[in-house]
Amino acid sequence: MDIQVHTEHEVIAIDADSHSILVRDLARRKDYHHHFDHLLIATGSKPVRPPLPGIEASNIHHVNSLDGGIALKRSLDQQRPQSAVIVGGGYIGLEMAEAFVLHGMKVRLIQRGEQLMSATLDRQTAELVADSLRRHGVDVQLGQSVTGFDSNNGIATGVITDQETFPADIVLLGLGVEPNSDLAAAAGIPLGANRAIAVDRRQRTRRADIWAAGDCAESYHLVSRRSVHAALGTIANKQGKIAGINLAGKKAEFPGIVGTAVSKFMDTEIGSTGLPERTLNELGIQFVSAVVEARTLPRYYPGSSPLTVKLLAEPESKRLLGGQIVGGPGAAKRIDPLAVALHAGFTLDDLLYLDFGYAPPFSGVWEPFVIAARQALKQV
Amino acid sequence: MDIQVHTEHEVIAIDADSHSILVRDLARRKDYHHHFDHLLIATGSKPVRPPLPGIEASNIHHVNSLDGGIALKRSLDQQRPQSAVIVGGGYIGLEMAEAFVLHGMKVRLIQRGEQLMSATLDRQTAELVADSLRRHGVDVQLGQSVTGFDSNNGIATGVITDQETFPADIVLLGLGVEPNSDLAAAAGIPLGANRAIAVDRRQRTRRADIWAAGDCAESYHLVSRRSVHAALGTIANKQGKIAGINLAGKKAEFPGIVGTAVSKFMDTEIGSTGLPERTLNELGIQFVSAVVEARTLPRYYPGSSPLTVKLLAEPESKRLLGGQIVGGPGAAKRIDPLAVALHAGFTLDDLLYLDFGYAPPFSGVWEPFVIAARQALKQV
Repeated sequence: MDIQVHTEHEVIAIDADSHSILVRDLARRKDYHHHFDHLLIATGSKPVRPPLPGIEASNIHHVNSLDGGIALKRSLDQQRPQSAVIVGGGYIGLEMAEAFVLHGMKVRLIQRGEQLMSATLDRQTAELVADSLRRHGVDVQLGQSVTGFDSNNGIATGVITDQETFPADIVLLGLGVEPNSDLAAAAGIPLGANRAIAVDRRQRTRRADIWAAGDCAESYHLVSRRSVHAALGTIANKQGKIAGINLAGKKAEFPGIVGTAVSKFMDTEIGSTGLPERTLNELGIQFVSAVVEARTLPRYYPGSSPLTVKLLAEPESKRLLGGQIVGGPGAAKRIDPLAVALHAGFTLDDLLYLDFGYAPPFSGVWEPFVIAARQALKQV
Repeated sequence: MDIQVHTEHEVIAIDADSHSILVRDLARRKDYHHHFDHLLIATGSKPVRPPLPGIEASNIHHVNSLDGGIALKRSLDQQRPQSAVIVGGGYIGLEMAEAFVLHGMKVRLIQRGEQLMSATLDRQTAELVADSLRRHGVDVQLGQSVTGFDSNNGIATGVITDQETFPADIVLLGLGVEPNSDLAAAAGIPLGANRAIAVDRRQRTRRADIWAAGDCAESYHLVSRRSVHAALGTIANKQGKIAGINLAGKKAEFPGIVGTAVSKFMDTEIGSTGLPERTLNELGIQFVSAVVEARTLPRYYPGSSPLTVKLLAEPESKRLLGGQIVGGPGAAKRIDPLAVALHAGFTLDDLLYLDFGYAPPFSGVWEPFVIAARQALKQV
């Protein structure tokens, strides 16, 4: 196959009916039409940047691209800011809080909602994450909305919320991403969840011969049985593979996601899969839950640390709905077996007798999620 | 329920027809009959101790009981042996090699077969374990059968094989276990795999009202679809729970095992699940396999170390048959998701798009077993 790569060319319009794109040659300042048999839209996502007063200040950073990360690193090295305010308590906020703490900075994190990680954790598990931030000196401010930024000569000096103003040498926005779907929308290609491009399991859009994959496209969630927008590297990778196989004339279907994510702040690891309470409530899905405090390793084994799991399941069918884990080193990836169980459509009963590996250097005899399943079964 | 515990009483015979046991009161040296409505046999297992010349020497140790472990520790502390010979290259042999190395001893391990861990690993993965032993100064002798022991005044001084004699201050036998099923066999209760007591999924033996659970009983293997003897703590725990629920008048069934096991030697972790090539060949099950060299974490991330996985699957159905993992810290428990996939009866295709957690502190974008699945699919 002959592959031509055009850098400094921007697609400025898609004509789905005539199977052509309007391309701007940025170097030569010339527009031209290009015919396609098949078109793959892989335009990714962009960080949410609300139009607040003062947001254009040069020291208000994003880290959703390599360039953004390099710019932030350069400003840390050159300007040696002493204090950082992070707006948003999701993965990016958390991971950047770790980076700032490791740089010896005074760190404050502002979150609009009443808990951190609200897309994936519930109150009990999120509180453990907040505890970890506080233990490492991060000032966690929950339930405050940012309304703007104080600035001086184009440099932000403070973050204004609906309650207070917090001084800051540097500001990091971690407010999530939204799909880059404007081009598709303008071409009449239907959008779905969170304005992500609607696709079927082969990554086809609703228009003939136009495909989409990655952060700009929807995913099917196997637990909620709905389309969602989940902008994660693993999902983008898989969708790209599926689209590629189909574009190459073979057939492949992306079965869907269960929403697994792992992260960490310092020595606290976080894993989640399936749906948290908030999403279950929004969808009207009944659930029971169990929270179990356990340890990463048997108490007597060197390196053992606390670990808390939460398990959610449907009361009637006993179908597993999700799980969360917060604990010391080794905790996060212990979400993976539960993710596989969600793919399999397993119930609480199925979970009880799964053959997990056991030896004292690795775990207790009963996996925490198995103990949680036993507790949850008492409620169904 | 009224529970009476009789210590220093030994059951010396079971009469299945009359529902009674013959009990010896060891303190009072008196035998008596005791009636039962239901009987649970939980007699466990005993270490294999072949009747070789010299095996009765006092410094030839087992560690299958707490007493055995304490006796060994006492002899290490009091006699300060300089060299140990371990007979057997399974889990016990490996873990005791670690303990002896950490005690600063010269360690030699003798294994009859041509590879270590032959019950769970294949050649490629077992060789990585042997490399790790050798790196830590252990002399690994494969393909040698122990025929007896040199001794002096009841103390073993050397281990004699079919090829050489190796001097030893202390000897550790790690030759596996066999079920304590003689009492059951004498009562006419049918035995199964490896002379373990044959049970159904409720842990019932073939005789009315007699149950068995733990290391003395069989398990059903979900991958080979046969009964096997698997003497592991997690399985014994689960069987005991199942038997207890049934004896208490409720109904519970043990779905079966997939043969998951985890272990380590120093910084090398080992996980396995399902069936290795040797067992597949014995059972006449066709298979394809793929070996993938990957890393525990992305190469650029601190603490990243090599990790090798092997995946086995049935060519026609693409059904997963097993997997092995050998690698640095964090490697072993990454067998658990594959164990869940075996429980679910997943195929290579199912494995491709599972939603594993990904973030650089925890893993690469593609799980090594997923990469292996893609390679294995090219062979089917």
